Amino acid sequence: MRTLKLTVAYDGTNYVGWQRQLNGPSIQQAVEEAFLPLAGGARPPVVAGAGRTDAGVHAMAQVASVNVEFALATDAIRRALNVRLPYDIRVLSVEDAPLGFHARFQAKGKTYRYRIVTTEVMSPFDRLYAWHAPERRDVDAMQRATEFFAGRHDFASFHSGEGLMNGTVRVLDSVRCAVVPGGLVIDVVGDGFLRHMVRTIVGTLMDVGAGQRAPGSIPDIIARRDRRAAGPTVPACGLTLVSVRY
Amino acid sequence: MRTLKLTVAYDGTNYVGWQRQLNGPSIQQAVEEAFLPLAGGARPPVVAGAGRTDAGVHAMAQVASVNVEFALATDAIRRALNVRLPYDIRVLSVEDAPLGFHARFQAKGKTYRYRIVTTEVMSPFDRLYAWHAPERRDVDAMQRATEFFAGRHDFASFHSGEGLMNGTVRVLDSVRCAVVPGGLVIDVVGDGFLRHMVRTIVGTLMDVGAGQRAPGSIPDIIARRDRRAAGPTVPACGLTLVSVRY
Repeated sequence: MRTLKLTVAYDGTNYVGWQRQLNGPSIQQAVEEAFLPLAGGARPPVVAGAGRTDAGVHAMAQVASVNVEFALATDAIRRALNVRLPYDIRVLSVEDAPLGFHARFQAKGKTYRYRIVTTEVMSPFDRLYAWHAPERRDVDAMQRATEFFAGRHDFASFHSGEGLMNGTVRVLDSVRCAVVPGGLVIDVVGDGFLRHMVRTIVGTLMDVGAGQRAPGSIPDIIARRDRRAAGPTVPACGLTLVSVRY
Repeated sequence: MRTLKLTVAYDGTNYVGWQRQLNGPSIQQAVEEAFLPLAGGARPPVVAGAGRTDAGVHAMAQVASVNVEFALATDAIRRALNVRLPYDIRVLSVEDAPLGFHARFQAKGKTYRYRIVTTEVMSPFDRLYAWHAPERRDVDAMQRATEFFAGRHDFASFHSGEGLMNGTVRVLDSVRCAVVPGGLVIDVVGDGFLRHMVRTIVGTLMDVGAGQRAPGSIPDIIARRDRRAAGPTVPACGLTLVSVRY
């Protein structure tokens, strides 16, 4: 038995997300099935991803773990996986990890990046990788609002979906909003994320930028613990899982 | 009557090229049909593009001309076209041009860029916009070879397809090969281009980089005026029409 740590990049456009689902192709399923000829069994091994990226969300460096029984060198495993995977999913590296390493349970933190294009016309080359929001925003107000997210909070107001076994309290290290040529980039770093949490934080910040909410309203939105208190969930295509820290 | 100058960006992945063809959707057809509700006729106006980009080739700033009869402001025309166009084609600007301006006949020069990714694994975000060629190349030799292309030459060795009414002599201002993070960029600037000319120049330079041809062999390849003398035509997805000069 041997535990491998994979670093995987993908364009999430054509997938239902990382996690296996019945309603369409997932990145997890594609990676697991790429192991089939190596693993030699009738069933592919389970590949656990650090972050359950949603449908349409991308990854620069998702981390995944898998237990296997074959003795192939890590570089040869990477090449064999990439030969079988479609070009919108690439295994960037394969490493041997301590036996039993689990990409999700052992992750210490993750960085997500949300890209917003603010020019009047959106480049066709950005259309799958950013959200087009050309309306004028008060970036200064957005930056002041970001400061209220850091720390340990109950993020129930920023969570879509059902109740969770492990609750809705998470620790965010930072939320940063930067002006870049042609748009904005919002980086969110934290120990764990609820479903739609990053995209709802971004939607709430965009409300602040549009003058619909004050920067100082964020603590109250968090305290309400009610999804209706926060702003909209912005489109998935703008979101990328940038890195996972262990 | 009024002549408009359009600047158009497109992701060529899903098109048979700029020019109307029977075998699939073209960018020209999409732009012409976007004019229909503005022009008010049963037939769309003819939109002439400066460069006939091939299937899968992209454009940052293709220029096109069209004669119309309506009096709408240029910004309103741009917005109306973009509302009807798919997101992989965007009209960046619409300007009034001198009556009878023709985007192709009056173009003084064009710049094409070819992107090559040389890292062992290609990012999924580059897969539609660059060619993956991870084999080691002698970039110094490639750069020496580029110098032989500048000037007025018969480029028949770099032309695929049938004979041309206007011959195969063209003037190239420069061919430049630069190392960029993760790969190479080859910029070709000239007054006009034959079918597959840029991609065959790049394929020939890549042969030089692989040591299969000497940099000094380029003048002889040009002098042969035979397509079989030059290197392969590299894939369309790496090529982008960057700009058109008037």
